[in-house]
Amino acid sequence: MAAPSEGDAASLLPDLPGGPLQAYRARASFCWKELALFLEGEDMLRLKKSIFSALEDDPLFARSRGHELSLEKHQELTFLRCKRVLGRALLRVEDMVRNPLSVLTLITCLGTYDWSLAQKFLLHLLVFGFAIYKSGSERHLEYLPKILSMEIFGCFAVTEVSHGSNAKAIRTTAHYDPATEEFILHSPDFEAAKFWVGNMGKTATHAVVFAQLYTPGGRCHGLHSFLVQIRNPKTLLPMPGVMVGDIGKKLGLNGIDNGFAMFHKVRIPRRALLNQTGDVTPEGTYVTPFKDAKQRFGASLNNLSMGRAIIVAMSVVNLKLAVSIALRFSATRRQFGPTDEEEVPVLEYQTQRWRLLPYLAAVYALDHFSKWLFLNLAEFQQGWEDRSTRQAELGREIHALVSGSKPLASWTAQRGIQECREACGGHGYLAVNRLGDLRNENDPNCTYEGDNNVLLQQTSGYLLGLLELRLQGGARLESPLGTVDFLEAYPDILDQRFSCPSVAGCLESSVPLAAYEWLVCYLLRESVQKVNQEKRSGSSDFEARNNSQVYRCRSLALAFLELTVVRRFHEYVHQPGVPPPLRATLQRLSALYALWSLNQHTALLYRAERRRRCPGGRDRPSR
Amino acid sequence: MAAPSEGDAASLLPDLPGGPLQAYRARASFCWKELALFLEGEDMLRLKKSIFSALEDDPLFARSRGHELSLEKHQELTFLRCKRVLGRALLRVEDMVRNPLSVLTLITCLGTYDWSLAQKFLLHLLVFGFAIYKSGSERHLEYLPKILSMEIFGCFAVTEVSHGSNAKAIRTTAHYDPATEEFILHSPDFEAAKFWVGNMGKTATHAVVFAQLYTPGGRCHGLHSFLVQIRNPKTLLPMPGVMVGDIGKKLGLNGIDNGFAMFHKVRIPRRALLNQTGDVTPEGTYVTPFKDAKQRFGASLNNLSMGRAIIVAMSVVNLKLAVSIALRFSATRRQFGPTDEEEVPVLEYQTQRWRLLPYLAAVYALDHFSKWLFLNLAEFQQGWEDRSTRQAELGREIHALVSGSKPLASWTAQRGIQECREACGGHGYLAVNRLGDLRNENDPNCTYEGDNNVLLQQTSGYLLGLLELRLQGGARLESPLGTVDFLEAYPDILDQRFSCPSVAGCLESSVPLAAYEWLVCYLLRESVQKVNQEKRSGSSDFEARNNSQVYRCRSLALAFLELTVVRRFHEYVHQPGVPPPLRATLQRLSALYALWSLNQHTALLYRAERRRRCPGGRDRPSR
Repeated sequence: MAAPSEGDAASLLPDLPGGPLQAYRARASFCWKELALFLEGEDMLRLKKSIFSALEDDPLFARSRGHELSLEKHQELTFLRCKRVLGRALLRVEDMVRNPLSVLTLITCLGTYDWSLAQKFLLHLLVFGFAIYKSGSERHLEYLPKILSMEIFGCFAVTEVSHGSNAKAIRTTAHYDPATEEFILHSPDFEAAKFWVGNMGKTATHAVVFAQLYTPGGRCHGLHSFLVQIRNPKTLLPMPGVMVGDIGKKLGLNGIDNGFAMFHKVRIPRRALLNQTGDVTPEGTYVTPFKDAKQRFGASLNNLSMGRAIIVAMSVVNLKLAVSIALRFSATRRQFGPTDEEEVPVLEYQTQRWRLLPYLAAVYALDHFSKWLFLNLAEFQQGWEDRSTRQAELGREIHALVSGSKPLASWTAQRGIQECREACGGHGYLAVNRLGDLRNENDPNCTYEGDNNVLLQQTSGYLLGLLELRLQGGARLESPLGTVDFLEAYPDILDQRFSCPSVAGCLESSVPLAAYEWLVCYLLRESVQKVNQEKRSGSSDFEARNNSQVYRCRSLALAFLELTVVRRFHEYVHQPGVPPPLRATLQRLSALYALWSLNQHTALLYRAERRRRCPGGRDRPSR
Repeated sequence: MAAPSEGDAASLLPDLPGGPLQAYRARASFCWKELALFLEGEDMLRLKKSIFSALEDDPLFARSRGHELSLEKHQELTFLRCKRVLGRALLRVEDMVRNPLSVLTLITCLGTYDWSLAQKFLLHLLVFGFAIYKSGSERHLEYLPKILSMEIFGCFAVTEVSHGSNAKAIRTTAHYDPATEEFILHSPDFEAAKFWVGNMGKTATHAVVFAQLYTPGGRCHGLHSFLVQIRNPKTLLPMPGVMVGDIGKKLGLNGIDNGFAMFHKVRIPRRALLNQTGDVTPEGTYVTPFKDAKQRFGASLNNLSMGRAIIVAMSVVNLKLAVSIALRFSATRRQFGPTDEEEVPVLEYQTQRWRLLPYLAAVYALDHFSKWLFLNLAEFQQGWEDRSTRQAELGREIHALVSGSKPLASWTAQRGIQECREACGGHGYLAVNRLGDLRNENDPNCTYEGDNNVLLQQTSGYLLGLLELRLQGGARLESPLGTVDFLEAYPDILDQRFSCPSVAGCLESSVPLAAYEWLVCYLLRESVQKVNQEKRSGSSDFEARNNSQVYRCRSLALAFLELTVVRRFHEYVHQPGVPPPLRATLQRLSALYALWSLNQHTALLYRAERRRRCPGGRDRPSR
């Protein structure tokens, strides 16, 4: 991309205001406007500007400075703001289709302003609305205009009090009654109450409810989703048989009304079943296009991938905001100095740089990865009716990437925000400086749409499965997006020795990239060996997998994702299209992220070397 | 200590209520009552019980469940509760003197209930009150009964908007005017406003204010403290010339009114100077018992050590609460299982145990250390008029230990609470389950009474200073509490090789203890070499110290404290007085904490071994 013309830059990227940061900014080795244009592209910058301007110009979005917002008031405001955002049509459907990144941009811009608003909007339009569009059929299309106009307001109800991670074990039931052509929705006890459901607490009129589908005769066909009216849209009073309410204050995101619901033999029409993965005939016969129940279950929860990919982007925004606050503070805050008279900005201290700059690099690397992942997922979802092997393989690869990158991004952000909070000292503890909100509102990214530690098992399971296929004499080890292709050279990589002659020669991301390939191969081998050893000692598959997580499968999944992020960013900053004045800066960011990230695994790298030296030796602690 | 008699146990430690935890509790290999009695002692258990009973029986301390407390209401309630606690005289002065641990017990019991209350009480009585008692003289004794009756309410004002860590650079001035025998207290600009001062926002009538003392002729004698009335105790209106107010919402501790204050040429009597470290005669001559200004400055900030030691204990309580919540949840929460029908408690999963159990061990090790430190500090402070060399050495040792253990304890708690929050999944994100409050209210422990990273420099500075003295041919390397005595064998320790023949043989805290001694010696050598190398390349002392923090001095300080905590707990659990039925459990906790803690340094242990193998070789990355 060419450098911006003067007109573009002036309108899209006005000069920053003067002030205490000017001294540092004047020392920059590159033009920040050129960097912004290269990373975001003119279209996205324009979209961001239009969204932020819309919020800035509307008094409904004014911050309530100086007085505390009660929980109720915050929830009410968030609902009104959500309605306003939908009404303003900040993004046209054709723009979304043309460039799926625009959806991500809208969500993250709203989140930059307030995550409660972004999530309320996301839950209604993209989770609830998209579920009806994707899991329903023509008979449900009538709801879409009502969703867009907020004539009905929605939520997505999977989790129950006692089942979150293990969604398959959800206990709400939907028994089909052919006499009236209705399903009877029922919560057997309080532990089966829907719980945590965003928008359900006070505002949703409709819910997509996951329940175990039973046909006459008592046969269970597993989890299906139903479109259920839970409140009167005019009065917001609960529908008969529905007990629904707010679950109370959370650590953050209190503008969202998270709710619970219990269904007492609630009758809903047969056509309320979102029947894309399975349907019931008026007479009560279950029909499904899927032969395999497991495959059907996977398809019915497919939407979760999109949620997870968005969480990756949300985490990146949180880290971006925190790092910006902390670095700007560090550049202006002076404390101590070589003499009693002269104090230096705390950013000049080695410790402060060491704490903050790697997170700055992480923002760039993860931001790039997040967009790449989202675009691939969007493309995959557009081909959802494609039943080819490649499409299935792509689905598995994306599922593994999404399942591993949500943990990586949300944890990196969580740690980074904490570091930023501390790096700003007392001022970082003042609510107005926002680091607390960022920490509290990033925190659930580690939990919802799949607990991080549980999700990582999906990623390691994918890698172990691929290797097993390969060892059974299967096809080449490769994947549609190429993230696992290096594993084809698995034995050779494990034989490689690190050979960088100097420290200076390591300050380039290709060096940690190669080390990461080796590390992933090593952890893959360790994981396979551990699982096999567990099985040989009589463990069931379930036990063998559980007992191989710590130091093996869990580390494998994280290292694989780190490698993928490092590789994507390395390739991105080394492509010929990078404007020459930006190359050095971007390549340093790439090297910093990769080396810092790899640094977590140093003990393993040394240990492996030690084992190689004494191949027969026991693996004993050493110093 | 003997096992409790039946009567004792029944009254002090009633049986736990039945419920879903019973199955796990029934499997315990030891008697929890015996453990509690051994760890706490009967006196402390009795005191705890009396404090908690007093709170439970008084409606003023009832939790406001179900509705949100506004910031103002929380602040008001906290003030009233503080007054009630003082009025109830939960602890007699003679008990405090007889057993200083009782003070810690009172603070931590109040904090277990609500940290805002504990801190309000602590700031008024022990920080403000103690400062007057310790830094003032007979002329200030009249204030003490008023403090105890809360006729006046106090705060302790050091920090300013732009100076926290660098307290020496505080800019509030106090010019002495012999004409009226008054000091003129003045804040030159907003950046010199007192800021963050707990209790100052709305409730304090008096403040101990730190300011630069000037005598006629314009000579500055450095920082001194003054007792200043800031509000009318009847109306709470500010005194003339004092601009005072609340700094607004914080990430937590919102029951405390943190405030700011600016003084506009406020005249205060000469006798308001807390004159223990220096005084001004009516004519305006400065007199001090200290010859050395640095020594005087140290003495004037001496109180901070007590604050820091209490923070160590506060952090331990936070971790204790979080770990209890998370472990109990994990023992009852079931998710997934070997079959679709049978789900297992999440505590049975390897990952969950790996995440939580080390923090359980950390609670025990740090709790023991915290009490030991507090007792030593109390003893040291009782001998504050002792001018012996041993007392001075003890002061330096305790300062180094306090400065390093506040970071270690507050960070361990902060990370542990986050892990507990995540380990409880969605339910951990619900405010009522308290993990959010614990995280938010532990967080400032990393910052106040000295930023953790800054404080660590005090600890490394102490060690480097001792070694320098030793190398200059000084006396033996030893200290009154013996925490550094092992360094006398510094070269021998560095020559030692790790030689534990089996993994099983390492599951004992003496093994990591020995490794820690080696590690501290290694890091000490690395730190000295780095500082010297910096100086040889032309760095000033200031630069050399700053540029040697990361990977060297900072790691050294942390490792030294970890070693000290490990050593204290190792010795404690191996003493003959441990009841035989508790030995195995306590020794396993000791081993777990020590090994887990040492595990952070594995890369360094490998690296050092590699260097030894190739002594001439460059220190290059390796795998």
